[in-house]
Amino acid sequence: MTAKSLTPMLTVKDAAAAIAFYRDAFGAVERERATAPTGHVVAKLAIDGLQFFVVDENPDPFNLSPRSLNGTTVRMNLVVDDPDATAAQAVGAGASEIFPVADQPYGMRQGRVADPDGHHWLIGKPLDD
Amino acid sequence: MTAKSLTPMLTVKDAAAAIAFYRDAFGAVERERATAPTGHVVAKLAIDGLQFFVVDENPDPFNLSPRSLNGTTVRMNLVVDDPDATAAQAVGAGASEIFPVADQPYGMRQGRVADPDGHHWLIGKPLDD
Repeated sequence: MTAKSLTPMLTVKDAAAAIAFYRDAFGAVERERATAPTGHVVAKLAIDGLQFFVVDENPDPFNLSPRSLNGTTVRMNLVVDDPDATAAQAVGAGASEIFPVADQPYGMRQGRVADPDGHHWLIGKPLDD
Repeated sequence: MTAKSLTPMLTVKDAAAAIAFYRDAFGAVERERATAPTGHVVAKLAIDGLQFFVVDENPDPFNLSPRSLNGTTVRMNLVVDDPDATAAQAVGAGASEIFPVADQPYGMRQGRVADPDGHHWLIGKPLDD
Protein backbone atom coordinates (compact mmCIF):
# COMPACT_ATOMS: atom_id res chain seq x y z
CA MET A 1 0.00 0.00 0.00
CA THR A 2 1.13 3.51 -0.80
CA ALA A 3 -0.61 6.30 1.10
CA LYS A 4 -0.81 9.69 -0.57
CA SER A 5 -2.57 11.88 1.99
CA LEU A 6 -4.34 11.69 5.33
CA THR A 7 -6.66 14.60 6.03
CA PRO A 8 -9.10 15.09 8.89
CA MET A 9 -12.67 16.09 8.06
CA LEU A 10 -14.39 18.10 10.79
CA THR A 11 -18.15 17.88 10.94
CA VAL A 12 -19.80 21.21 11.67
CA LYS A 13 -23.33 22.57 12.04
CA ASP A 14 -22.84 25.21 9.34
CA ALA A 15 -19.88 25.02 6.99
CA ALA A 16 -20.08 28.68 5.92
CA ALA A 17 -19.88 29.87 9.52
CA ALA A 18 -17.07 27.43 10.28
CA ILE A 19 -15.06 28.57 7.25
CA ALA A 20 -15.38 32.18 8.45
CA PHE A 21 -14.29 31.20 11.95
CA TYR A 22 -11.23 29.25 10.77
CA ARG A 23 -10.25 32.19 8.55
CA ASP A 24 -10.48 34.65 11.44
CA ALA A 25 -8.97 32.32 14.04
CA PHE A 26 -6.15 30.67 12.11
CA GLY A 27 -5.90 32.44 8.77
CA ALA A 28 -7.33 29.40 6.98
CA VAL A 29 -8.00 29.81 3.27
CA GLU A 30 -10.66 27.97 1.33
CA ARG A 31 -9.21 25.84 -1.46
CA GLU A 32 -12.23 23.90 -2.70
CA ARG A 33 -15.92 23.81 -1.97
CA ALA A 34 -18.48 21.26 -3.17
CA THR A 35 -22.19 21.22 -2.44
CA ALA A 36 -23.99 17.88 -2.54
CA PRO A 37 -27.46 17.58 -4.12
CA THR A 38 -28.75 17.50 -0.53
CA GLY A 39 -27.23 20.96 0.06
CA HIS A 40 -24.50 19.67 2.35
CA VAL A 41 -21.20 21.46 1.92
CA VAL A 42 -17.73 19.86 1.90
CA ALA A 43 -14.91 22.41 1.82
CA LYS A 44 -11.17 21.96 1.84
CA LEU A 45 -9.31 24.56 3.91
CA ALA A 46 -5.63 25.10 4.54
CA ILE A 47 -3.70 26.83 7.32
CA ASP A 48 -0.31 27.72 5.87
CA GLY A 49 -0.74 24.83 3.45
CA LEU A 50 -1.84 22.33 6.15
CA GLN A 51 -5.11 20.91 4.91
CA PHE A 52 -8.33 19.86 6.57
CA PHE A 53 -11.96 19.64 5.54
CA VAL A 54 -15.13 21.01 7.04
CA VAL A 55 -18.28 19.09 6.29
CA ASP A 56 -21.85 19.95 7.08
CA GLU A 57 -23.54 17.70 9.57
CA ASN A 58 -25.69 14.98 8.06
CA PRO A 59 -26.91 12.31 10.46
CA ASP A 60 -27.60 9.72 7.76
CA PRO A 61 -23.97 8.80 7.10
CA PHE A 62 -23.14 9.35 10.80
CA ASN A 63 -21.60 12.77 10.26
CA LEU A 64 -22.21 14.53 13.54
CA SER A 65 -20.80 17.70 15.02
CA PRO A 66 -19.45 17.96 18.57
CA ARG A 67 -22.48 20.11 19.45
CA SER A 68 -24.81 17.29 18.50
CA LEU A 69 -22.77 14.57 20.18
CA ASN A 70 -21.94 16.71 23.20
CA GLY A 71 -18.24 15.97 22.89
CA THR A 72 -15.52 15.42 20.37
CA THR A 73 -13.59 12.29 19.52
CA VAL A 74 -10.59 13.77 17.68
CA ARG A 75 -8.52 16.81 18.62
CA MET A 76 -6.55 18.93 16.21
CA ASN A 77 -2.94 19.46 17.24
CA LEU A 78 -1.73 22.72 15.70
CA VAL A 79 1.92 23.68 16.06
CA VAL A 80 2.67 27.35 15.41
CA ASP A 81 5.47 29.81 16.02
CA ASP A 82 3.60 31.83 18.66
CA PRO A 83 0.92 29.79 20.43
CA ASP A 84 0.02 32.62 22.83
CA ALA A 85 -0.86 34.92 19.93
CA THR A 86 -2.69 32.22 17.97
CA ALA A 87 -4.77 31.10 20.95
CA ALA A 88 -5.67 34.73 21.70
CA GLN A 89 -6.66 35.27 18.07
CA ALA A 90 -8.84 32.13 18.14
CA VAL A 91 -10.59 33.28 21.31
CA GLY A 92 -11.08 36.70 19.73
CA ALA A 93 -12.73 34.98 16.76
CA GLY A 94 -15.17 33.10 19.00
CA ALA A 95 -13.35 30.07 20.45
CA SER A 96 -13.52 29.29 24.16
CA GLU A 97 -10.47 28.54 26.23
CA ILE A 98 -10.30 25.01 27.64
CA PHE A 99 -6.91 25.56 29.25
CA PRO A 100 -4.58 28.53 28.83
CA VAL A 101 -1.32 28.43 26.91
CA ALA A 102 1.45 27.54 29.37
CA ASP A 103 4.67 25.56 29.59
CA GLN A 104 3.56 21.94 29.90
CA PRO A 105 5.45 19.08 31.60
CA TYR A 106 5.50 17.16 28.29
CA GLY A 107 7.85 19.65 26.66
CA MET A 108 5.39 21.89 24.84
CA ARG A 109 4.17 25.40 25.39
CA GLN A 110 0.55 24.64 24.69
CA GLY A 111 -3.06 25.56 25.35
CA ARG A 112 -6.40 24.25 24.22
CA VAL A 113 -9.45 25.98 22.81
CA ALA A 114 -12.85 24.76 21.65
CA ASP A 115 -14.11 26.28 18.42
CA PRO A 116 -17.74 27.38 18.02
CA ASP A 117 -18.72 23.89 16.80
CA GLY A 118 -17.03 22.25 19.78
CA HIS A 119 -13.93 20.91 18.01
CA HIS A 120 -10.89 21.08 20.26
CA TRP A 121 -7.65 22.60 19.06
CA LEU A 122 -4.35 22.16 20.86
CA ILE A 123 -2.19 25.16 20.03
CA GLY A 124 1.46 24.92 20.91
CA LYS A 125 5.11 24.68 20.07
CA PRO A 126 8.02 22.67 21.44
CA LEU A 127 9.58 24.35 24.48
CA ASP A 128 13.03 23.95 22.96
CA ASP A 129 11.96 25.81 19.82
CA MET B 1 1.27 33.36 12.35
CA THR B 2 3.34 30.54 10.90
CA ALA B 3 1.87 27.07 11.23
CA LYS B 4 4.29 24.15 11.36
CA SER B 5 2.04 21.10 11.57
CA LEU B 6 -1.57 20.09 11.98
CA THR B 7 -2.09 16.56 13.24
CA PRO B 8 -5.29 14.84 14.29
CA MET B 9 -5.37 13.06 17.65
CA LEU B 10 -7.78 10.13 17.80
CA THR B 11 -9.14 9.23 21.20
CA VAL B 12 -9.34 5.49 21.78
CA LYS B 13 -10.38 3.13 24.57
CA ASP B 14 -7.04 1.32 24.59
CA ALA B 15 -4.05 2.83 22.81
CA ALA B 16 -2.10 -0.44 22.67
CA ALA B 17 -4.97 -2.22 20.92
CA ALA B 18 -5.48 0.72 18.57
CA ILE B 19 -1.79 0.82 17.64
CA ALA B 20 -1.94 -2.89 16.76
CA PHE B 21 -5.07 -2.35 14.67
CA TYR B 22 -3.61 0.59 12.73
CA ARG B 23 -0.46 -1.45 12.08
CA ASP B 24 -2.44 -4.40 10.72
CA ALA B 25 -5.00 -2.29 8.84
CA PHE B 26 -2.85 0.45 7.34
CA GLY B 27 0.77 -0.48 8.00
CA ALA B 28 1.07 2.32 10.57
CA VAL B 29 4.36 2.48 12.45
CA GLU B 30 4.78 3.82 15.96
CA ARG B 31 7.14 6.79 16.10
CA GLU B 32 6.77 7.99 19.69
CA ARG B 33 4.97 6.88 22.79
CA ALA B 34 4.54 8.75 26.05
CA THR B 35 2.71 7.59 29.14
CA ALA B 36 1.29 10.22 31.50
CA PRO B 37 1.59 9.82 35.28
CA THR B 38 -2.09 8.81 35.15
CA GLY B 39 -1.19 5.89 32.87
CA HIS B 40 -2.78 7.43 29.80
CA VAL B 41 -0.86 6.79 26.60
CA VAL B 42 -0.22 9.28 23.78
CA ALA B 43 1.42 7.71 20.74
CA LYS B 44 2.44 9.21 17.42
CA LEU B 45 1.88 6.91 14.46
CA ALA B 46 2.59 7.32 10.77
CA ILE B 47 1.15 5.69 7.66
CA ASP B 48 3.77 6.11 4.94
CA GLY B 49 5.00 9.18 6.79
CA LEU B 50 1.49 10.67 7.29
CA GLN B 51 1.20 11.32 10.99
CA PHE B 52 -1.59 11.04 13.52
CA PHE B 53 -1.83 10.43 17.24
CA VAL B 54 -3.76 7.93 19.28
CA VAL B 55 -4.61 9.00 22.80
CA ASP B 56 -6.17 7.01 25.59
CA GLU B 57 -9.59 8.13 26.63
CA ASN B 58 -9.66 10.37 29.69
CA PRO B 59 -12.99 12.04 30.44
CA ASP B 60 -11.48 14.80 32.58
CA PRO B 61 -10.05 16.84 29.71
CA PHE B 62 -12.98 15.85 27.47
CA ASN B 63 -11.04 13.16 25.61
CA LEU B 64 -13.71 10.69 24.59
CA SER B 65 -13.72 7.85 22.11
CA PRO B 66 -16.44 7.27 19.53
CA ARG B 67 -17.55 4.22 21.50
CA SER B 68 -18.21 6.38 24.55
CA LEU B 69 -19.89 9.19 22.62
CA ASN B 70 -21.77 6.81 20.32
CA GLY B 71 -20.57 8.65 17.24
CA THR B 72 -17.60 10.42 15.80
CA THR B 73 -17.12 14.08 14.98
CA VAL B 74 -14.11 13.90 12.65
CA ARG B 75 -13.47 11.46 9.82
CA MET B 76 -10.06 10.52 8.50
CA ASN B 77 -9.72 10.85 4.74
CA LEU B 78 -7.02 8.44 3.57
CA VAL B 79 -5.95 8.52 -0.07
CA VAL B 80 -4.08 5.43 -1.25
CA ASP B 81 -3.06 3.79 -4.49
CA ASP B 82 -5.47 0.84 -4.17
CA PRO B 83 -8.49 1.64 -2.00
CA ASP B 84 -10.13 -1.75 -2.60
CA ALA B 85 -7.11 -3.57 -1.20
CA THR B 86 -6.66 -1.17 1.72
CA ALA B 87 -10.33 -1.31 2.73
CA ALA B 88 -10.25 -5.12 2.55
CA GLN B 89 -7.11 -5.18 4.68
CA ALA B 90 -8.75 -2.88 7.26
CA VAL B 91 -11.83 -5.10 7.45
CA GLY B 92 -9.57 -8.13 7.79
CA ALA B 93 -7.87 -6.40 10.72
CA GLY B 94 -11.19 -5.76 12.49
CA ALA B 95 -12.82 -2.70 10.91
CA SER B 96 -16.45 -2.78 9.85
CA GLU B 97 -17.60 -1.59 6.45
CA ILE B 98 -19.85 1.48 6.48
CA PHE B 99 -20.11 1.62 2.70
CA PRO B 100 -18.16 -0.43 0.14
CA VAL B 101 -15.44 0.97 -2.09
CA ALA B 102 -17.08 2.13 -5.33
CA ASP B 103 -16.84 4.86 -7.95
CA GLN B 104 -18.51 7.88 -6.33
CA PRO B 105 -20.29 10.75 -8.11
CA TYR B 106 -17.82 13.22 -6.56
CA GLY B 107 -14.91 11.86 -8.57
CA MET B 108 -13.36 9.44 -6.11
CA ARG B 109 -13.24 5.70 -5.91
CA GLN B 110 -13.91 5.51 -2.20
CA GLY B 111 -15.38 3.49 0.64
CA ARG B 112 -15.76 4.00 4.36
CA VAL B 113 -14.92 1.76 7.30
CA ALA B 114 -15.27 2.17 11.05
CA ASP B 115 -12.29 1.04 13.08
CA PRO B 116 -12.74 -0.96 16.31
CA ASP B 117 -12.92 2.28 18.34
CA GLY B 118 -15.57 3.71 16.04
CA HIS B 119 -13.39 6.21 14.15
CA HIS B 120 -14.45 6.46 10.53
CA TRP B 121 -11.92 6.20 7.71
CA LEU B 122 -12.67 7.20 4.16
CA ILE B 123 -10.39 5.17 1.90
CA GLY B 124 -10.13 6.27 -1.67
CA LYS B 125 -8.31 7.69 -4.65
CA PRO B 126 -9.24 10.13 -7.39
CA LEU B 127 -11.06 8.42 -10.25
CA ASP B 128 -8.73 10.07 -12.76
CA ASP B 129 -5.68 8.66 -11.00
